[in-house]
This record gives sequence, C-alpha cells and structure tokens, in this order.
Amino acid sequence: MITTIQHGPVCELRLSRPPVNALSPDLIAALTESVRSAPKQGARAIVLSGTPGRFSGGLDLPLLLTLDRAGMAELLHGLYGLLGTLACSPIPIVAAITGHAPAGGTVLTLFCDWRIVAEGDWKLGVNEVAVGLTLPPVLHQALALIVGRRQAERLAVTAVLIGPAEAARIGLVDEVVPAPEVVPRAIGQCQTFLALPPQTMSETRSEARKDLTALFAKSFDKEIDELLTMWWRPETQTALRAILEQLSNRKQSSAARL
Amino acid sequence: MITTIQHGPVCELRLSRPPVNALSPDLIAALTESVRSAPKQGARAIVLSGTPGRFSGGLDLPLLLTLDRAGMAELLHGLYGLLGTLACSPIPIVAAITGHAPAGGTVLTLFCDWRIVAEGDWKLGVNEVAVGLTLPPVLHQALALIVGRRQAERLAVTAVLIGPAEAARIGLVDEVVPAPEVVPRAIGQCQTFLALPPQTMSETRSEARKDLTALFAKSFDKEIDELLTMWWRPETQTALRAILEQLSNRKQSSAARL
Amino acid sequence: MITTIQHGPVCELRLSRPPVNALSPDLIAALTESVRSAPKQGARAIVLSGTPGRFSGGLDLPLLLTLDRAGMAELLHGLYGLLGTLACSPIPIVAAITGHAPAGGTVLTLFCDWRIVAEGDWKLGVNEVAVGLTLPPVLHQALALIVGRRQAERLAVTAVLIGPAEAARIGLVDEVVPAPEVVPRAIGQCQTFLALPPQTMSETRSEARKDLTALFAKSFDKEIDELLTMWWRPETQTALRAILEQLSNRKQSSAARL
Repeated sequence: MITTIQHGPVCELRLSRPPVNALSPDLIAALTESVRSAPKQGARAIVLSGTPGRFSGGLDLPLLLTLDRAGMAELLHGLYGLLGTLACSPIPIVAAITGHAPAGGTVLTLFCDWRIVAEGDWKLGVNEVAVGLTLPPVLHQALALIVGRRQAERLAVTAVLIGPAEAARIGLVDEVVPAPEVVPRAIGQCQTFLALPPQTMSETRSEARKDLTALFAKSFDKEIDELLTMWWRPETQTALRAILEQLSNRKQSSAARL
Repeated sequence: MITTIQHGPVCELRLSRPPVNALSPDLIAALTESVRSAPKQGARAIVLSGTPGRFSGGLDLPLLLTLDRAGMAELLHGLYGLLGTLACSPIPIVAAITGHAPAGGTVLTLFCDWRIVAEGDWKLGVNEVAVGLTLPPVLHQALALIVGRRQAERLAVTAVLIGPAEAARIGLVDEVVPAPEVVPRAIGQCQTFLALPPQTMSETRSEARKDLTALFAKSFDKEIDELLTMWWRPETQTALRAILEQLSNRKQSSAARL
Repeated sequence: MITTIQHGPVCELRLSRPPVNALSPDLIAALTESVRSAPKQGARAIVLSGTPGRFSGGLDLPLLLTLDRAGMAELLHGLYGLLGTLACSPIPIVAAITGHAPAGGTVLTLFCDWRIVAEGDWKLGVNEVAVGLTLPPVLHQALALIVGRRQAERLAVTAVLIGPAEAARIGLVDEVVPAPEVVPRAIGQCQTFLALPPQTMSETRSEARKDLTALFAKSFDKEIDELLTMWWRPETQTALRAILEQLSNRKQSSAARL
C-alpha cells in the first residue's frame, strides 16, 4: 500500500492503494508505521507522494460504511494517530500532491512542512461537509494555521473544491509545478532543509510548528466520540449513501462507455 | 427603514434609510429585530443589502451629536447588540455591498459569513480614526479575523478607505461583481450554503466562527464606558464637528450647482 | 553611527556604520537611545533608514565572535532592549529599507509600524538558521504577526532570502518604491499618521499593536540564556566561522580585482 523509495537521505513514501489511494484502516496503519520508522532507518526527510493524477481520494467511504461503531472508533483513533505522527515528525515532510486530493487527501498535507501540487485539473479542499461530515476541530485548526482564519472558514463551511492555481493563491499549497517535476521538486525542497545546520534548523522548525504539535498534546476521546455520534445520524448516513450511489453510477456509466 | 424581500428560503434585508442608510438608533433597532426574526419566520439564510451606490454610510453622526450621554449609551448598547446578533446568527448572512460602506458600513459586514461588493468607485474601510473615533477592541478583533492581524493594524490606524479591487486583494471582501449582480450573487451564495447537509454545515459553521462569536460572550459595559468618555473629549468633538461642517458644505455646494 | 535628520515633526534616524550598518553593541546602544529620546525632543514620528544599498547587514558577526559569554550576554540584552524600544515606541516608526536587510536587518523592521523597501536586487529575510542561529521565539512571534503563521514558518525554517517584489507579495513589506523615493515616501507615511486626530490615532495604534508590545511584558532571561548556550555549541561556531571565512574571501577577491 506504500511504495518506499530512497533518494539518499530522503525517503519517499508513495501511496499505492489503487484506484484512488483511499484511506482505509490498513493504509492509515501502514502510513503511520512508515512515517514513524523512516527516521529510525536513517531518513532525514520524507516525501509523501501519490500516483499520477491521484494523491489521495480521502477516506474510503464504501469500506467505512461497512464498519460497526467499534470499527469506526478504531479507524478514527488510527486516523488521529496518523495526523499526530505527521505533525510531530522529527524530520521534515514534503507533500508531493500528484493529483486529486479532496477531503482526507488535502487533510494529510496540512500536517506536512511543505506542499507542492502538480499542474492540472486536480481538486483540493476540505469538502467533508458536502458528504455529510462535520469538519472536526483539529482539522479546522490545522487548516487555519496554513491558510489563515478567514480562508479556513470559507473552505470548511462551503466545502468548495479548488484547483492548483487558487490553492497557491490562498496559501493552501506552496508551489505548483508541471506533473513530472512534483516529486523531484519535493526531493529538492527536502535537500534545502537538509543543507541547513541540522540542530539549528530542527530547533527553529520546532518553534515554528509548536502551535501545530500542541494540537496533539491532548486526548481526542471526546472529539472522536462526537464524530461517532455524527457518523450514525440520519443526515450523515443519507449523505454518505447518496455519495456512494453517485460513485457507483459513475463506475457503471464508465463501464457502459467502454 | 428595512425593506424585506423574500427569495424562497433566503430573506433579503435591504437598508432603506435615505439618503445614505446611516445607522440611527431606529435603523439599528429595526435591523437587529429583522435579523433576529428572519429565521423564526422560516428564512434559512439572509442577504444584507443596501441601495444602489450606498450600502451604509456608517453611524449617523449629525443625529448622534444631538444625543446626551444616556442617549449615546443607549445607541452604543444597541449597536453592540446588533453586531452580536449578526455574529451569532443561527443562519448564514451574506453582505451585498451595493456601494459606499465607510466606517460602520464596513463594520456591519465583518460579522457576516460572506462579503460581495459591486464594481465601482466605492469606498470601504474602517476610517473611524479620521473622524476622531478610536476603533473599539471588538471591531479591531473582528477585523483581524477577516483580513489578518497586519492588515487590521494598517486599516485601523491609518483610517485608509479603499476600493473594491484592493478590498478583494487583502480579503476584506470575498468577491467583486458588476453592480446589477451583487444581490443575485449574494442569493446564489446563500443557496450554496443551503445546498449542503444542513446540520453538518451548521456545526462546521459554528466551529469556524467560534472565535467571532466568543467575542460576544462577555459584557461590553467597560468598553462602552470608554467610548462614551472618548465621545465627549475635545479632540473627538472637534473632529466630529469638522466632519459635520464638511458634509454640510458639500450639501450646500451641491444645492448651489443645481 | 546614527545620522539624525529632522523633517519637521518627523525625525529620521539613518544608520551610518560603514560598510554595511552591521549591528554592533555600540550601534545597538546608539539606536536605542535615539529612538527613546526622539519623542522627548519633540519628534512625533520616526523614519528608520539606512544608506543607499544597505539598510543593515544584521548582527556584526566578526565582532561578536570576539566576545566572551559576559560580552555576548550584554549584547543580547541590548538587542532585546532595542527591539522592545521599537515595539513599544509611543510614536510611529516607518522603516525606509534602502537596500540589503538580511537577518537582523529585516528583524529591526518587524517592530516598526510600516515598511517601505527600495526597488532593486536587495535581499530581505530571516536567514538566521543558515548562519547557525536558531531564530528566537520573540522574533518568530513578531514575524508571524506581520506575515502570518505559515509564511513565518517558511521564512524562518528555510532561511530563504527574498527580493522586494516577493516581500511585498507576502506582506513582509508594505510598499516597494524607486530607491530615491524611499525616504520621502517614509516621511509621507509619517505625515499620514500625523494628520489624524493624535489621541485617537495613538489609542487605536496601541490596540492594534498590543499583541506586539505584550511580547515584551515578560523577562527574556531564559530566552537569552538559551541563545548563549546555542552560540557556543560546535554546530553554531562552525557555521559562524564558515560565514566569516566566506566574507573574508569575498573581501580579498574584491581587493584582488582592484
């Protein structure tokens, strides 16, 4: 589910769960483990990439709808664990956004040190509300740290998906580059971090990110309980199942066109 | 003083106090009441608009200068009540800025969910300082939530008035559209909010705006007392009366040209 | 070390320590004293300028490397005193950035009310990390108040130096003007402040800057102790001496070209 590629001191973790790198319990566990073990195995920076055209489609909703409350609780604890692992990584992480990154796809990048997106008609944003999911406080806060308070309000409440140019304009990504250059440029940005005096860079990085890491200094039990209650309320279940039907129809019509 | 126009679930509240929709005690009371009663009467979103060329000229200074301390205290309590009503509205409010919106005109929009301004040579800004009025903390804080801390400092301290293009560039408004499209586009933005799963949107909106609504969780008695002291100090009275004379000369010279 | 030029109520303090207006203990003391005494001598606003092509090269590293721990402690207390003096100035200060302003050069401007930079190939930024110096918390916080949290992270951690156009785009400066107009425009901006009702402007300015001045309400003893420990660790000494060698080689090759 994760393809690991070494580029000298830079470890690329490429999401590799076809067709859209959707976040399943297994992918979440694998990514958490990979991010945690990379520095132990000598990596000094990480590139988090996806496949061409797909960074990550976010949570694997069809799979999640088969889970019971215990299963969803486990998934959410795993997801929060992954976000905390990204946020508190001792080494820099550069997101190489190789394609679509709606909802959970964009969310992963918020906890990284740098965001580079491929040119193209890709969609980024936190459109959780459109599929019936209240954006949890920790995600809202992390988003506001990147794009500022007003753009966080706009993106979260309207569930708008935006392209690379607008993402760059509002600061949701740092750079837009041609698709073949996304991963090389991400490696280059890692090398920029690594060319600096390491202890000095690391201390300054900790200071700069202490508001982000502080988000994970508390228990998320209550926040996760509220998400579980939300998940099974009628409005959310109805919205989720409507999305599922859309996805299924889209697949069938794609098949019919063949 | 308020023209109410129903557009399905969207209630437009059009400021209608000629010539410039200046905020008098009566208009403040009427607007507060209209915003409060709209959701009770079935509205699911509000458009706050003005007349062509005039959104609102801000506080009705000539009228205010006739008030005694008790009258001014009542006005300020009413104004803070209006701002809190806008900030804490259970349904989204979109400002359709149809023209000039200096000082109090811009202030009203800071507490809305979205700001759309007409193309044209209109003036926006918080130029209170230029007329001798210290910008109160609650307005400064609300401004910083929209445009960020540095632009809030710049706008508040220099009292600069800016046009639509610059307002969009610094985030004081979300959109600039041709004048005839301001209200239709505001209704469209309301429909964007309303097309989302309602409970999910509402919860995410509360989270996104909790710093704004938190501003109104405290008593403003002390802040209002300080404003009353400011109002009657020589510098402020001198500045206010100079503005009044300017306005009066402008009217006379307009009349002379007829 | 400071050339003082009166422009009516505006006092220009021009850094005049050749060749690059590097911050030595003496220049820091002289600037602190000049900023403190200007309002006592009747100035109502200050322009802080440099020489053409050089605003300030930041800390005088060759000189600092000759100091013992007591000397460095004194320097740092002096520097923090200067920054607090700028931040808490009772009268507005406009930075006229006449040329290069790396590291400490840019840092000085963060505590001013307004920043104007000359057009040209000048470098601005907080590149402390590149020379082995962890960016202290107070500088990181002041930076974030100007450019926002994400750009502060980017500038501080990557140690990137940027030109006037990018500085304007991210809000690190307010204006870019042709070099001969930097000081006149800074005086003009002072006059904008001074044309406003003075007490009203001053109160609104205090409100707008209270997060900045609050940074100086605490003791910096612990922060300075940490900087002293950092200064003498091997990584920092190595980086500093490498920079010194670069500077020295550059001078020799300049001399050889003559």
